[in-house]
Amino acid sequence: MEDERKLAAELVAELIRQGKKIATAESCTGGMVAQNLTAVSGSSNVYECGIIAYANRIKVKELGVSEETLARHGAVSKETAIEMADGIRRAASSDIGISTTGIAGPTGGTPEKPVGTVHIAVSSKRGTFQEKLSLLPECENNREKIRKAATARALQLALEELRGER
Amino acid sequence: MEDERKLAAELVAELIRQGKKIATAESCTGGMVAQNLTAVSGSSNVYECGIIAYANRIKVKELGVSEETLARHGAVSKETAIEMADGIRRAASSDIGISTTGIAGPTGGTPEKPVGTVHIAVSSKRGTFQEKLSLLPECENNREKIRKAATARALQLALEELRGER
Repeated sequence: MEDERKLAAELVAELIRQGKKIATAESCTGGMVAQNLTAVSGSSNVYECGIIAYANRIKVKELGVSEETLARHGAVSKETAIEMADGIRRAASSDIGISTTGIAGPTGGTPEKPVGTVHIAVSSKRGTFQEKLSLLPECENNREKIRKAATARALQLALEELRGER
Repeated sequence: MEDERKLAAELVAELIRQGKKIATAESCTGGMVAQNLTAVSGSSNVYECGIIAYANRIKVKELGVSEETLARHGAVSKETAIEMADGIRRAASSDIGISTTGIAGPTGGTPEKPVGTVHIAVSSKRGTFQEKLSLLPECENNREKIRKAATARALQLALEELRGER
């Protein structure tokens, strides 16, 4: 089984065990995190809502990301990732919110933010943490590989948060 | 290439050709429609927003599905599918809205609505049409097969709408 499938099953099991709910706010992964979570039978007990915010205006309108954050740091930034994760947790009234924003490629990279740059954030009542991934070497500018690696890492980080490993 | 991947690529190409945008409102497919669309490089030109509305309260809050519709017809109904597709088209200000709502299984089926019952709707300014799928025999109560078949059909129906074949 692929990494992201296995991690999604572990995450759903852990959420059920703890009686907690999760919600997703995805940009570069475009629904892949949600799709893996909902592939697990029984996920409807722990997953109610996700937003795919591909356009910046949707990040603002649906997730409450500030225009200033987008103007100052860009959509692919730790600041935007954090506001997206906080925003979806608030919108969904969930215990955990996870977000992804990055450049899946093959185009769209810049010297400062090359293809494979992905920010992931996890929001909970304990606070919000984020991690920056640089997936270009590992994923060889392959859009699908970058999206899968980002999805797997987002699921892993949510699992670590739930298990108190962060 | 899998059906849904091929159809997503065709749909994105057709949307680009026509200069139109699409948005997704998914229940039983849980992000799979969005994930396939955004797997296509260049999809950000035609896809801005999707909502995964797994819980009924999200269908109401985020998509404007009426409480009365849910109470009278249930979440898995043509009426709910139509309101979801209209709702996401309105929320995203897109040209096309597509929705899925169904029972992916393996549990949750009833005699009236067995596993594999899926309603798909496509909303455009020309109107909204819906189709009911009965995927149980073809997909053998396999959650993944049901979700993939529903995703492929949703993409196909959107393509037919765009090509004026509906």
